[in-house]
Amino acid sequence: MIRLDQGDGPLRFRMAIERRLCVGPPDAQFMFGGAGLGAAIAAMETATGRPVVWATAQYLSFARPDAVLDLEVVVPVTGRYSSQARVIARVEGQEIITVNAALGSRPGDVSMSWPEIPTVPPPGDCPAMTFDWKRRTDDLNSQFDQRIAAGRFGPERNDGIPSPDGCSAMWVRPSDPAEPIDRVMLALMADFVPSGVGHALGASTGGNSLDNTIRFLDVRPTEWVLCSTRIHGVHAGFGHGRMHLFAEDGALLATASQSMIIRRHGPEVG
Amino acid sequence: MIRLDQGDGPLRFRMAIERRLCVGPPDAQFMFGGAGLGAAIAAMETATGRPVVWATAQYLSFARPDAVLDLEVVVPVTGRYSSQARVIARVEGQEIITVNAALGSRPGDVSMSWPEIPTVPPPGDCPAMTFDWKRRTDDLNSQFDQRIAAGRFGPERNDGIPSPDGCSAMWVRPSDPAEPIDRVMLALMADFVPSGVGHALGASTGGNSLDNTIRFLDVRPTEWVLCSTRIHGVHAGFGHGRMHLFAEDGALLATASQSMIIRRHGPEVG
Repeated sequence: MIRLDQGDGPLRFRMAIERRLCVGPPDAQFMFGGAGLGAAIAAMETATGRPVVWATAQYLSFARPDAVLDLEVVVPVTGRYSSQARVIARVEGQEIITVNAALGSRPGDVSMSWPEIPTVPPPGDCPAMTFDWKRRTDDLNSQFDQRIAAGRFGPERNDGIPSPDGCSAMWVRPSDPAEPIDRVMLALMADFVPSGVGHALGASTGGNSLDNTIRFLDVRPTEWVLCSTRIHGVHAGFGHGRMHLFAEDGALLATASQSMIIRRHGPEVG
Repeated sequence: MIRLDQGDGPLRFRMAIERRLCVGPPDAQFMFGGAGLGAAIAAMETATGRPVVWATAQYLSFARPDAVLDLEVVVPVTGRYSSQARVIARVEGQEIITVNAALGSRPGDVSMSWPEIPTVPPPGDCPAMTFDWKRRTDDLNSQFDQRIAAGRFGPERNDGIPSPDGCSAMWVRPSDPAEPIDRVMLALMADFVPSGVGHALGASTGGNSLDNTIRFLDVRPTEWVLCSTRIHGVHAGFGHGRMHLFAEDGALLATASQSMIIRRHGPEVG
């Protein structure tokens, strides 16, 4: 889904911002934040030859469709087992995203995780995602098959009744079955946290990401990923939440969190 | 606990790295990561006049006791309601920490949070924290009164039996009752996530933070803070976890997460 071209030198990359990487109203689309984080992860992994352990993207400005994103990788620390890196991503010289990350793997055969996959119906028994805002049908959402596994999405969330626990879940897979579930793909999926705000508040509400933070565990092949989202809280116009990303076999692949500007379109709640 | 001096110009600050801000073995102490994040939060809030919404620190190198940390604040975006900022913190020109953050508050009176405070005994009924490693008694831990509310700490965690859920909790307050519980203080407390690794694994194990991420909700006065930690997983020598920071009245003040290098000193588990 993310395709980078080599730029000038081994630490420079370019990505065309196609419509399929954008979201937002048809007349004011912008690059999906997760696409920027995914591109940065791909760039850092290519540049260092190491897998990302943790990455955080800070979103500074919007990138518009048909622009070209220039990614510059900086590696301030290269150790025996790990590297510390960052990416500065710009459009025509203006900074759009900054990503900080650690990459590597260390000796040690302990592989454990604690959160358990929530009990939800299998993807085939879950209804398709619905959207209650105007969008282009060729936008980022067209690149994924999204199924509602728990919680309210679309118009039905707009009943004014907050969720008791802030939890919702969706099964997600790439529409193109040839696309692998790798760290880049999980970073894209992790930017669906704002989809859980409407269910949490019981309102037709979304969010604009301020950041995206992702932490990887044992990433392994799976057809579907369960994106289990919990909104932690909303205060002073900002919201915060997390996502646990599970393989179909129940393995925890990654955890993610983000803060966002709350965009409310429904009735007052709270 | 964090005291900054103004540096050259309104965006520059300095902090003396006293022993009380350090951790680690007596002969190889280093600045506690949370002290660096806390200093950066104080610097950004002073520079912008706005409260931090979310901040992430990337730890690049160690700062040693008696050094001076130079903090440079950069504010790439100043909007009507919010600012995007970063801090580069150096010792003698070498980069130690980079912090990215959003600051501000927006119109909107919705204030809700979903995670509930775990059921644990009150602080007065909880035993004092014990430490099973060599430390100076004037280190960072001397600045806090820490009580074990749930889970195993100190030598008793070293029984080889992993926790079923990865969860532990401690009550924490500043040793000096004049110190307020503010965003800076919560950032310091949030760097205790690695204290939960030993309980999760059932081993005498800690971690060196790669990063610290904190997201603030309705920060309000409280004497004690319940630091409710969950380790999400350990893989390839790295661990990941989160902390929910609750006031005594049950209000969720902040959520935090971090990734760390696992440092194991006990028997093999897993």
